[in-house]
Amino acid sequence: MPEAILDDISHRRYNPLRASWVLVSPHRTKRPWQGQQEAASRIELPSHDPTCYLCPGNKRAQGDVNPKYDSTFVFVNDYSAVKEQQEEYKQPDQDGSLATRLLRAESTTGKCYVITFSPEHNVTLADMPAPTIMPVIDTWTKIYTSHIDPHSPLSRAAKPTTSSPSAPNGNIIEQPRQQYRYMQIFENKGSAMGCSNPHPHGQIWTTTSLPEEPEVELDNLKKYRREQGGCNLLEDYAKLESEKGDRTVFENSSFWAGVPWWGTWPFEMMVVAKEHKRALVDLNQQNKEDLAEVMAEITRRYDNLFETSFPYSMGIHQAPLTGTDEEIEASHFHMHFYPPLLRSATVRKFLVGYEMMAEPQRDITPEQAAKRLRDCGGELYRRKL
Amino acid sequence: MPEAILDDISHRRYNPLRASWVLVSPHRTKRPWQGQQEAASRIELPSHDPTCYLCPGNKRAQGDVNPKYDSTFVFVNDYSAVKEQQEEYKQPDQDGSLATRLLRAESTTGKCYVITFSPEHNVTLADMPAPTIMPVIDTWTKIYTSHIDPHSPLSRAAKPTTSSPSAPNGNIIEQPRQQYRYMQIFENKGSAMGCSNPHPHGQIWTTTSLPEEPEVELDNLKKYRREQGGCNLLEDYAKLESEKGDRTVFENSSFWAGVPWWGTWPFEMMVVAKEHKRALVDLNQQNKEDLAEVMAEITRRYDNLFETSFPYSMGIHQAPLTGTDEEIEASHFHMHFYPPLLRSATVRKFLVGYEMMAEPQRDITPEQAAKRLRDCGGELYRRKL
Ligand SMILES: O=P(O)(O)O[C@H]1O[C@H](CO)[C@@H](O)[C@H](O)[C@H]1O
Ligand SMILES: O=P(O)(O)O[C@H]1O[C@H](CO)[C@@H](O)[C@H](O)[C@H]1O
Repeated sequence: MPEAILDDISHRRYNPLRASWVLVSPHRTKRPWQGQQEAASRIELPSHDPTCYLCPGNKRAQGDVNPKYDSTFVFVNDYSAVKEQQEEYKQPDQDGSLATRLLRAESTTGKCYVITFSPEHNVTLADMPAPTIMPVIDTWTKIYTSHIDPHSPLSRAAKPTTSSPSAPNGNIIEQPRQQYRYMQIFENKGSAMGCSNPHPHGQIWTTTSLPEEPEVELDNLKKYRREQGGCNLLEDYAKLESEKGDRTVFENSSFWAGVPWWGTWPFEMMVVAKEHKRALVDLNQQNKEDLAEVMAEITRRYDNLFETSFPYSMGIHQAPLTGTDEEIEASHFHMHFYPPLLRSATVRKFLVGYEMMAEPQRDITPEQAAKRLRDCGGELYRRKL
Repeated sequence: MPEAILDDISHRRYNPLRASWVLVSPHRTKRPWQGQQEAASRIELPSHDPTCYLCPGNKRAQGDVNPKYDSTFVFVNDYSAVKEQQEEYKQPDQDGSLATRLLRAESTTGKCYVITFSPEHNVTLADMPAPTIMPVIDTWTKIYTSHIDPHSPLSRAAKPTTSSPSAPNGNIIEQPRQQYRYMQIFENKGSAMGCSNPHPHGQIWTTTSLPEEPEVELDNLKKYRREQGGCNLLEDYAKLESEKGDRTVFENSSFWAGVPWWGTWPFEMMVVAKEHKRALVDLNQQNKEDLAEVMAEITRRYDNLFETSFPYSMGIHQAPLTGTDEEIEASHFHMHFYPPLLRSATVRKFLVGYEMMAEPQRDITPEQAAKRLRDCGGELYRRKL
C-alpha cells in the first residue's frame, strides 16, 4: 500500500465532501503538553435534579412546566437563536456604492427546539442501550417529517401521520408557520463543548436559509453525481471504506461508522448510510435499529477510550426540507461526530492559530485513531468499576 | 439607516473575503450561562523563568541554548508540524477506482519557526509600548523577505539585504532549502487558545502548499479585482469602514482596525492597510510604526475590556512567497484577531454544535462590539491598579 508511508510524513488530505484540505503531522504526537487541561468530567449526578430545567415535572426559565415524560421530550428553545416572526429587513438595492457591495445582510427566521434523550438526569447516550435510543431517532424523524415541504419528493417517503404529527407524550411539535429550508439536528455534549446542562439533550435549529456547511456539502454531492453518472459520493465512500477496513470503527448492514480519510479532530467520526438514503424519512425500521446500534457503539467507545464522559458535538446532515429535485436526490443521510480530546480525559486538541488562519491540522492519523476506537468496544468502563 | 434594525432581528451577514455567511442573533445575549468557565489569567509571573524554554540563556527541549537576546529571537520549532525533508509520497494515478477518486493526499514539506516578542517572560504585546513592538515587525519582515521567490514581483520591493538576511542578535534565519509557497505568521495567546507558555511569542509556519484560508481569500480578492476594474476588495473595504465609523475601533494614516461587518467571534477584529500593500515588504518605515501603534492599541483595548489578559489567536494574511503576478498583485496585507471571550474574563463563546455542523453564529452585533472596544482605550488597566 503506497499509503503506508503517510504514517510517518507530513501531508495534506483532501475532503471531497467539503472540497477542502487538512494538514496531517503524524510525527508531532511526541510534543509535550504543558498547557490548559480540561476538568475530568463529573459522573456523580442524581437521576432527578430539582434545579434542572430539562428534568420531567420541573419548571423552565420562562415559567413553562415540563410534563412527566418517560422517553424524549421536545419543546421550543427558551433562548432561540432565530425567531419565527420579526420585523422585516430589506437589503438596499445594489446602486454601485461600496456599501451595497460590501455590507450585505439578509433576514433569517426559523424555529429552535430542544429535545431531551431520556427523563434521567444522569445518563448519556453512552449509558443507553440501543433500544432506548430508538425513541430519540423516532422523535427526530417525526419532527423532520412535520417540517418537510408537502411538494417535495421526500414527502412521498414520509409515512402518513395523523392530523397533528404524533409524538410521544407531552411533545410540542406544531406545524411550522412557514416552509423552512433546512433543519439542523445536533448535540453538544460536555462542558468542553459549550454544553451547560448535563441532562442528556440535543437541539434542532430550523431556518429559512440553507446554512453554509450543508450547502457546501450539497454542492459537492451534486457535482459528484453529475460527474459520476448518478452515483452518490457518500454511498461510494461507505462502500470503499467498508472494503478497506483500516478506518472502520464499527459497521452493520445499514451503516458504516469510522474515522474519515479527511477527519480533522483527533477522533472525529462519520456515520454513513450504506444504501442511498436522502433523509430520516427514508430509513425503515431495520435501518433505524441499526442507527441506534451505531450511536450506542460510537458513544460507548468514546467513553471507553479515555475512561471519561467523552465530550463531542454531533449532528445529522440530510436533505433540505425543501429544494430542487436534484438537491433532494443528491442528499445522503450521514452524521458527524466532532470530539475535542486528543491524549487523555484532560488534554484536548486546540484548533487555533494556524488552524484558524491557514488550515486545519491534525497529529495522529485517522488510521491510528480508528484502530484505537475499534479496540475499545465492549461494556462501558463505568459499568465495570 | 436601514441597517439599524439589524440590532434587533436575527439575520445573516455575508463575508466577501471568504464568500461565506455568519448567522447573527442579537436578541440572544440575554441567555443565562451556567456552563464551563475559563480560569481568570494569572499575571504574577517572574520576568525571567529558569524553566521557560523561551527565556534568554535557557536550554530548550532538544538541548540547544537560547542566546542572551535583547528584543526578539527566532529559532526553528523543536516540534515542527512540517519538516524540510522527508520520504516522498506519490499519489497513485487516477485509474477510475473509488480509492484513487476518494482517498487523495499530497506530501507537504516546510519549516516552522518560533519568534519571541521580548526577552521578558512576564509581558504581552498589551504591555509593550508601540516602539518596542517595532523589532517584532522588523523580524517578521526579515524572515518573510528571506523566503520570497527571487523571481516574484515582490522581490523588487524587498530591500537588498547583506548576504545572509540580517536579523537581531542570535536569530537563526537560514536561506530555505527550497522555494516555499506560503508563510503563515501567527500568535496563540493565553491558555484558552491552546498556548502552553506565557512567554510572549508567536509562530511562523512555511509550507510548499498554499493553505485553505489564504487560498479562499486570494480567490475572492482576484475575483473582485477582475470584476471591479482592478480595485482591491480590502482597500475598498477599509475606505468604506473608515467613512462609516460604526465598526471602527482605531485607525491611523496607514491602517483601519475594527470589527468586520462579517465578524464571527464576539470581539473579532481586522487590521487592513488603507493603501494597497501586498505584503510586509511593501510597508515603509511610517507604515511599520503605524502597524506597531495599531497592534498596541488593539491588544491594550482587549485587556481593558474585561480587565484580564485577553486570549486570542492572531495572524497575518499577505502575498504568497511565490505565485502568479495576478496572485501577488491581488493580495492585500491584513491581520485577523480571533478572541474567544464573550461576556467576561471567564465566559467564552463556544463555536460548537450548530456552528460546526451548520454555520458560524454570533450573539452581540459587530457594531455593539466595536463600540465597547472603542470606549476602552487609554492606559492598560493593570498599570492603573
Ligand atoms: O505549537 P503549540 O503552540 O504548542 O500548539 C498550539 O498551536 C498550534 C498551531 O496553531 C496548534 O496546532 C496546537 O493545537 C496548539 O496547541
Ligand atoms: O444553546 P446552548 O446549548 O446554551 O449553547 C451552545 O450551543 C449553541 C449551538 O451550538 C452555541 O451557539 C453556543 O455557543 C453554545 O454555548
